[in-house]
This record gives sequence, C-alpha cells and structure tokens, in this order.
Amino acid sequence: MNFQPIQSEANAKFKRWKRILESTRVMRKEGVTLAEGAHLVQVVLERGVKPLAVLLRAKGINEEAEGLLAQLAQKRVPLYVLDTLLYDQLSPVEHGAGIMVEVALPENPEAPEIPVDALYLDGVQDPGNIGTLVRTAVASGIKHIAASKNSAHFFSPKALRAGMGAHFAATIYENVEPTELKGLFKGRILAADARGGQDLFEEKAWSETATTWMMGSEGQGISQAALEAADQRLYIPIEHDCESLNVAAAAAVCLFEQRRRRLKK
Amino acid sequence: MNFQPIQSEANAKFKRWKRILESTRVMRKEGVTLAEGAHLVQVVLERGVKPLAVLLRAKGINEEAEGLLAQLAQKRVPLYVLDTLLYDQLSPVEHGAGIMVEVALPENPEAPEIPVDALYLDGVQDPGNIGTLVRTAVASGIKHIAASKNSAHFFSPKALRAGMGAHFAATIYENVEPTELKGLFKGRILAADARGGQDLFEEKAWSETATTWMMGSEGQGISQAALEAADQRLYIPIEHDCESLNVAAAAAVCLFEQRRRRLKK
Repeated sequence: MNFQPIQSEANAKFKRWKRILESTRVMRKEGVTLAEGAHLVQVVLERGVKPLAVLLRAKGINEEAEGLLAQLAQKRVPLYVLDTLLYDQLSPVEHGAGIMVEVALPENPEAPEIPVDALYLDGVQDPGNIGTLVRTAVASGIKHIAASKNSAHFFSPKALRAGMGAHFAATIYENVEPTELKGLFKGRILAADARGGQDLFEEKAWSETATTWMMGSEGQGISQAALEAADQRLYIPIEHDCESLNVAAAAAVCLFEQRRRRLKK
Repeated sequence: MNFQPIQSEANAKFKRWKRILESTRVMRKEGVTLAEGAHLVQVVLERGVKPLAVLLRAKGINEEAEGLLAQLAQKRVPLYVLDTLLYDQLSPVEHGAGIMVEVALPENPEAPEIPVDALYLDGVQDPGNIGTLVRTAVASGIKHIAASKNSAHFFSPKALRAGMGAHFAATIYENVEPTELKGLFKGRILAADARGGQDLFEEKAWSETATTWMMGSEGQGISQAALEAADQRLYIPIEHDCESLNVAAAAAVCLFEQRRRRLKK
C-alpha cells in the first residue's frame, strides 16, 4: 500500500477537489464527485464502481474504513493521506469515518424504452432532502429519478451521504423540464400538492399505470410550470393544525402508498 | 419600539444564549431555548406563547420578519439588535430570516388519563430528524411524543426549525425509558424494526387500539431495551437492494399507514 501525503492547501489535487465541491458547474465539467463514509465506499465497491482516488484523514480513520483499505489497494486506486485540516475542508460531516473516494459521475442516461415508475424533484434545495428522496424512492421500488434545473445537485457529497448508497442503484436524470417528463418516462404524472387536488388515500385510479411523482421545493411546493404538466394533483390528508409535511416525509407517504397498492396486486 | 443593541461577545445576555445553545444541560436548567425564523415566530405567537426576548440581526431582517415586529412590540417583548457576527453564532441556519425569539421550554407534562396514540424516539441523534419527526407525527394526528434520555434534545434551535412549529401543537415528554411507555400512554407498543417482525401493510390487527410507535436511532435502529418493551415488531417492505430508510421517512410511512386506516373507519 502506497500512501501519498497531501499537506498543503496549495497542492494541485486538493485545490481541484475543493473547486469541485464549491461549484456544481465545476463538478459537472470535471465529471467527478466525492463520496464520504465507510458505508458509502462499501456500496460504491459493491456496485462495481472503481473509485478514482481514496482520500484518508491523517488523524485517523475508523475501523470500518480500515476494513476497506485492502480492497481499494487491490484495485490499484491511488491512496492520499490528507492533513486533518485539509480533509475536514472537503468532508460533508464533522466527525466522519475519515475516508472518502473520488468517483466519476454517471453519464446522463438514455430514456427508458417502456413506461417506468419515476420520481421528479421540482426545485428541491436541501442536499440532505435530495439524498433522502433518492434513498426513499429506491427503497419503494422506483429507480428512475429526475430533477429540474433549479434543484440542488444529486451528487454533492451531502446528498450522496444522505442517500446511503441508493444513488448507485438508481438511474438519475438532471436538468429535466416538467414538459419533458411525459416523453421521458411515459407514465401518469402525479403532483403531490398540499394546496389541493384529490385525497391520496381515497382516490383509486392513480396507481393503475406507471407513475411519475412530482415533489416540489421546501418553501414553495410545486411550481406553476410543473403543475401544468401534471395529469393529477394529489394531497396527503394531514391534520388541520399543521401546514404541510417536509418534502422527504411527503414523498415517503406517497411512494409507499403506491408500493402498498402494487404489492397487494 | 425600543431596540437594545448588543455588540460585544462579552455582553451577559449574549453569553447566556450561547451557553444555552452549547449545552443541553444548561438549556434545561435555564428552561428556555431560541426559535429562529419568521414562520416559527408566527406559530409561537399564534399558539399564545409569549416570547421572553426577540433577537434581530443588525444586517437586516426579511419582510416576513418585519411583519411580526409590531405584534412583538405590542406584547412588550424586549427587542435586541445583535451585530451580525453575534447573531450568526446563535442562528441554526446561515441565511435565515434574521429573527429569533427566546421562549420558555414547556414543563414536563402529566401522563394522559386515557390511552392515546404516541410516538417514541429511541436514541434519535440528528436534530433535523427530531424536528421532522415531530412535524410528521403532528401532521398524522399524533400529539404525544416522547424520547429516550440518549436522544437529541427536542427543543434545540435546529430541531425547532425542522419542526416548523409542530412542537407547539404537541405534548412532549423527555427522558422516558422504554419500560415506562406502557404506563404513560397505555397503547399497544409497536417497534418499527428493519430487521424483522411482521409486514406493516399486511398485518391488520396493530391499528385497532391506541398505539405507541417506537423509532430507533439513525445508525443502530431500535435498541435491545426498547425491543423488549415492544408488543410487536413491524417492518416496512422495502426493495432488497436497499438496506433501510432514513428514520424520518420510515416514521412517515408507518404513521400515515396508521392514519390511512383510521380515516377509513
């Protein structure tokens, strides 16, 4: 095992990683991101993705991370040991496992040939919500996930972390307009909208074909443009003394109501 | 309207607020917390809670926050204007509304006299998850929420913010042992456990009486002690290529499956 130390902010590799994390544009241009944490690295390896580099924290890595080192070295992935102050500038969490990998972003995928169940994020801003939404969708059986241009990036380290590896089991489409959804996924477009429409639980017909679920932004909900592209609006019947659900909680309710109906058949 | 400027880290009020945020022990001893954001302040006022102080950011507050100032002044709540660097040390978010209120923590409540639906958090660590869980529970019709001693604090500014005001519509019980739950809420104790038990959707009987839902910690799930206190374990039937759901997403699925059944009756 060969460890290359990185001890200065002026190091070219460090500067590149930092630029990638600071700008979605740079991240897309370079076509790579950083995935932090032993669990995430494990999933990356299980999915057959070969990391481009391993970043280790000089102050120490945890036991789980240690267990992965041999696998990574065997694949001849270059190992870098970063001074803790440098590592912490790149890590999305304060007290992480001390291991990150640089991985290539997936290419923008082709449209599926047959109608598929899908999830569409219309302006979701919080990287933690993005990651949780990917995780929930995959757990519910949805593998096609798209987002509007004004949503936060799917592959930021924070979103990857919250996704707990689900990103690598999904097909992800970026910069998708609401008007493109019908052509892309060929399903019935359902807008989860706290402001009105039909009762998610009482309304029966929505689950009978492939569906594309639209979830809106944290503050504003579904945008006008997205609403206009929807075939149906559905609301979750919540208690009156509560305004709305968090977007990731709302998606969990909708996607698992769909799953419940699909499993019953 | 009288504004009292706070411009130094040495200011006694500033030092007290900072100590409260840095230590759950101090927060409990002082019996107060800080609620940030125009929406949260609005809910506090709507619920008839009188804030003890208003903290404003010197650099500026947003329009929504401006709308609340007259109401707060009318209630004779003292207004403090904090230098932006000081305000930002207390705020749970980077680019917030610029308004926070100091509010008294509720007293530890009495046990309800009749069986009630409840939620129990067994070691949940992330303040954002805690707040989202409170919000989801209230939206699903559950107003009694308890947590184990090793859970994060319900009333930290981050948890309050994620709760979006739901804390003030709930009755909250801290430091509750799993063995105390039966006496406290008198319902059937259900453990949401990814490792086994019965299928949430297929199993029918669990929703026929008042329930106390147990949700476990982010890393470990439900503890052994909590499992032993449970009447039944239920799992959410997720896809095999996904290990588990985020705890707040799992709670949304369980609590709204319960709500769906209750509404149907």
